[in-house]
Amino acid sequence: MQKDITINKCSNGQLNTVPDFVAIEEPLEISVTYSTEDSTIKKNISVTMRTPGNDAALATGFLFTEGIIKSKAAIKSTGILLSDENKMNVVLRVGERPFLQQADRNFYTTSSCGVCGKASIDAIKTVSVFNGSETNVSVAQTVLTSLPQQLQQQQIIFKSTGGLHAAALFSCNGDFVMLHEDVGRHNALDKIVGTSLQQGLLPLTNCILLLSGRASFELVQKATMAGIKIIAAIGAPSSLAVELAEEAGITLVGFLKATGFNIYTHNERITL
Amino acid sequence: MQKDITINKCSNGQLNTVPDFVAIEEPLEISVTYSTEDSTIKKNISVTMRTPGNDAALATGFLFTEGIIKSKAAIKSTGILLSDENKMNVVLRVGERPFLQQADRNFYTTSSCGVCGKASIDAIKTVSVFNGSETNVSVAQTVLTSLPQQLQQQQIIFKSTGGLHAAALFSCNGDFVMLHEDVGRHNALDKIVGTSLQQGLLPLTNCILLLSGRASFELVQKATMAGIKIIAAIGAPSSLAVELAEEAGITLVGFLKATGFNIYTHNERITL
Repeated sequence: MQKDITINKCSNGQLNTVPDFVAIEEPLEISVTYSTEDSTIKKNISVTMRTPGNDAALATGFLFTEGIIKSKAAIKSTGILLSDENKMNVVLRVGERPFLQQADRNFYTTSSCGVCGKASIDAIKTVSVFNGSETNVSVAQTVLTSLPQQLQQQQIIFKSTGGLHAAALFSCNGDFVMLHEDVGRHNALDKIVGTSLQQGLLPLTNCILLLSGRASFELVQKATMAGIKIIAAIGAPSSLAVELAEEAGITLVGFLKATGFNIYTHNERITL
Repeated sequence: MQKDITINKCSNGQLNTVPDFVAIEEPLEISVTYSTEDSTIKKNISVTMRTPGNDAALATGFLFTEGIIKSKAAIKSTGILLSDENKMNVVLRVGERPFLQQADRNFYTTSSCGVCGKASIDAIKTVSVFNGSETNVSVAQTVLTSLPQQLQQQQIIFKSTGGLHAAALFSCNGDFVMLHEDVGRHNALDKIVGTSLQQGLLPLTNCILLLSGRASFELVQKATMAGIKIIAAIGAPSSLAVELAEEAGITLVGFLKATGFNIYTHNERITL
């Protein structure tokens, strides 16, 4: 996930040539192949700039959080195309179709940036299959404040490149479940959701989603799709992230530190 | 650019209800209207999640950095659609066409996330109209290390929401030119480029672009389109950002602090 390079380091007026690392960023083309009565269609869905690794999880997670596939059962297989590690194709089972709502409009656009690229504001709110699921899940304040240190321990890569976002899952007792890192925040989350889909863990109703950076609309939207009810971000949320979390019944915490945090929505799930 | 809200602040185990702010995030639909011999066509190009403000600059900057329009002269007018502040339409002059290279492929995707959403890896590298411009521009090390403090002074909003990215232009002597903030890094840069396009300032060959966060491929790509030759980021660059900067002849500086910085490419422009 990192690349060795040589840089010129300027420190207090002194210039030195030193070895260093950068986070790897490469494009991943995500496509879907499905069959109609008389033909097989391969449809390019998106290109996302991502950090290589867990690409099958990223592709399936992306298709799921964007509402293009509705369940694990829709997927026959996932694999790279023509020995190109930057082209991931998801083959649907016979009878399954991708939900490409806008495709007829000549420029259906979806993107790993969640909503950017969607060619209509109306298309922004993707409908979650887990929308109706009620939950009594709760988390203790002390569990939340323990998460930043746990994240730091898990984020080994971050220490060397400084260039990776992380998304992590914890149980409501604070037990670590999984972590994914990527140059794109949305990709880190899609990798979490894709891995969970592959392992049959959805909906993630009994988990806390921890984000290493800011909480934007698209991250809350993707979390909603996965049935997540508690999101904690180390950074700030945006106005639309707060609005969507309120509407979707999600507890949204921001500025999470070892000493405290801000609760933006649904504080009833947090016990002191 | 910020919204007043009430939050629950948990600090050292104490919960208090306090007034707070979040950065505003709202979708902006960008469309282009152009005329053919027998009809007028309005084409939706993208929806980007942005912080409202300077939307005409954002729309024109986006169209320019994505290669969809090639000059200020192509634009007849820019304005909101149907009194909807979240729909910005750019009207091209008679005879001008948008460069929508992939539109025929039934799902041309462009996005304010730069490359995400483009439906083909081949489409990623947008060609800059300023590619050939040679430059003898240089910057003193002391000018670079003065920029973080200057950015902080300008970034008034950041202090209250913690949720906005900034892009700023400085002269090579370190004089402040302009700053834009947004929930999206790419939007902050598109606002810079769009404003420069409107004011006839392109190419920005004699400027330093300062980024408040990380430097990804898309930001270097957009800077390339604007003829920028020196990019300094407070955060880390990605591998592809470094590769593109090297190839495009751009000086890329990362981890910029008052005490020093890392030079990733083309250090010949930095004088000690």
